[in-house]
Amino acid sequence: MNPLYGAVEAGGTKFVCAVGTGPDDLRDEVRFPTTTPEETLKQALDYFRQAQKKHGKLTALGIGSFGPVDLDLRSPTWGSITATPKPHWADTPVAPLFRKEFHVPVGFDTDVNGAVLGEHRWGAGQGLDTLIYLTVGTGIGGGVMAGGSLVHGIVHPEAGHILLPRDPADSFKGSCPFHDNCFEGLAAGPSLEKRWGKKGSELGPDHPAWDLEAHYLALGLQSFLCVLSPQRIILGGGVMDQPQLFPLIRKKLLALNNGYIRHPSLTASGVDAYVVPPGLGNRAGILGALALAEAAGKGL
Amino acid sequence: MNPLYGAVEAGGTKFVCAVGTGPDDLRDEVRFPTTTPEETLKQALDYFRQAQKKHGKLTALGIGSFGPVDLDLRSPTWGSITATPKPHWADTPVAPLFRKEFHVPVGFDTDVNGAVLGEHRWGAGQGLDTLIYLTVGTGIGGGVMAGGSLVHGIVHPEAGHILLPRDPADSFKGSCPFHDNCFEGLAAGPSLEKRWGKKGSELGPDHPAWDLEAHYLALGLQSFLCVLSPQRIILGGGVMDQPQLFPLIRKKLLALNNGYIRHPSLTASGVDAYVVPPGLGNRAGILGALALAEAAGKGL
Repeated sequence: MNPLYGAVEAGGTKFVCAVGTGPDDLRDEVRFPTTTPEETLKQALDYFRQAQKKHGKLTALGIGSFGPVDLDLRSPTWGSITATPKPHWADTPVAPLFRKEFHVPVGFDTDVNGAVLGEHRWGAGQGLDTLIYLTVGTGIGGGVMAGGSLVHGIVHPEAGHILLPRDPADSFKGSCPFHDNCFEGLAAGPSLEKRWGKKGSELGPDHPAWDLEAHYLALGLQSFLCVLSPQRIILGGGVMDQPQLFPLIRKKLLALNNGYIRHPSLTASGVDAYVVPPGLGNRAGILGALALAEAAGKGL
Repeated sequence: MNPLYGAVEAGGTKFVCAVGTGPDDLRDEVRFPTTTPEETLKQALDYFRQAQKKHGKLTALGIGSFGPVDLDLRSPTWGSITATPKPHWADTPVAPLFRKEFHVPVGFDTDVNGAVLGEHRWGAGQGLDTLIYLTVGTGIGGGVMAGGSLVHGIVHPEAGHILLPRDPADSFKGSCPFHDNCFEGLAAGPSLEKRWGKKGSELGPDHPAWDLEAHYLALGLQSFLCVLSPQRIILGGGVMDQPQLFPLIRKKLLALNNGYIRHPSLTASGVDAYVVPPGLGNRAGILGALALAEAAGKGL
């Protein structure tokens, strides 16, 4: 029998919890809104207590969390959400709570690092070792795998905050309170809405918003390409539900590279397999958390 | 007795060859100009033939090369310089030549990946695992280590070609034939010279060139910080011989981050140890090649 894992996709808006062994055996998924840590974490703990009664003992747990988070295994605050502006959640020890309750290994990482691990394990990153998973939604976040390992460094990647050249025709100032002209401030969902006065989902597929959006996304991808040389770039999140974006982004990325980095992935025939949606679709987050559990269970 | 390694710093302007066991035992360094592959590689091979007679059999060789290079161990052209614009050198199989001649393991990587490995082994990156080594000279190149391994991905990082927001007061168009507004085109040595009409080494330390140069360097570093979350950023190359640049870059990087990523390294008291010159000084290149040899000799 396969080991049974618990998974928590700890988002700023909602929590998703599930138990299972992999993408074809994800059981009992529950969702509830993210309110206060007391209420929300109690709901999650209660869920896994009940799930264990029903499905048996968990081998390990995985948590992909909104951030910033403390991933330093030697830190006294490992496993916490740290300096988030989200009310009530700053300095909340999440992973230690689950470890204390269930006495199992707990894998803890950013939601996007979880997603890139899940895509590597079961999705669009299988067989590769250097990948970026970018979510474009309420914010922009990047999960990074290099040489088969998730990148942490001093904190963890904050790929949405690279600074980009603003399009000369774009007078929108950006919506990031920390940075003028950062990727997230120019291209996340709220910026799209503020710039055009309508939610992205209400703009038609031919609206000029998408060409500008694809331009900024391609600029961001060009930076990731140059710094990390990823073998594949996976784009998820609510904004990427607009299917017209993918061909635009691919074309603009090739134009920005302008033949400089030469590789079959950076050609008109190769780029469709290079810049791709998540292989796990909208389950990339929860399956990413499951992959974190699996890795923790194996002592990775 | 320690194993003896051979090291080749294969630069676009000059080759440096040496044998030794580490930074305190680097013997017989020779330098010669990079002319044609036939002439230059023959000189390098001859050097090691003679060096073996004098110092004994080499255990392994390491080559840190100008690029782009093929680092894919499964590729039939592994160990070659590939699509370089440098006359005569495109598609030159460098590493296989040394492997065939000396029958030892040959470590082959970009010059900057070699440098980051050398800094990790003996210099400013000791004890860390996620680092970037940036050289700012005739071009801008970045070597990247993540989780203790050198980053390759589809090709290798080309960190000098991220696109940056141009300073509104800067009318210089950039000098990269491939990209408007790329880091290298705005901030490498030749751009400095074209923008100000004098070589960097001829501009006084109070010249306004340095403030703008530091601005672009900080913009580049901000992107590396967000994508890779490095534990330290090491800046080498001829342009960085201007010591007034370091304090300017550090101050501007903190201003660009604007308190967003919170870490002791990103504070006024921590940044001096975060953005640093190479611990190996101007020997970072050749010692990097030696570190590549050591890693190859150990089968890493």
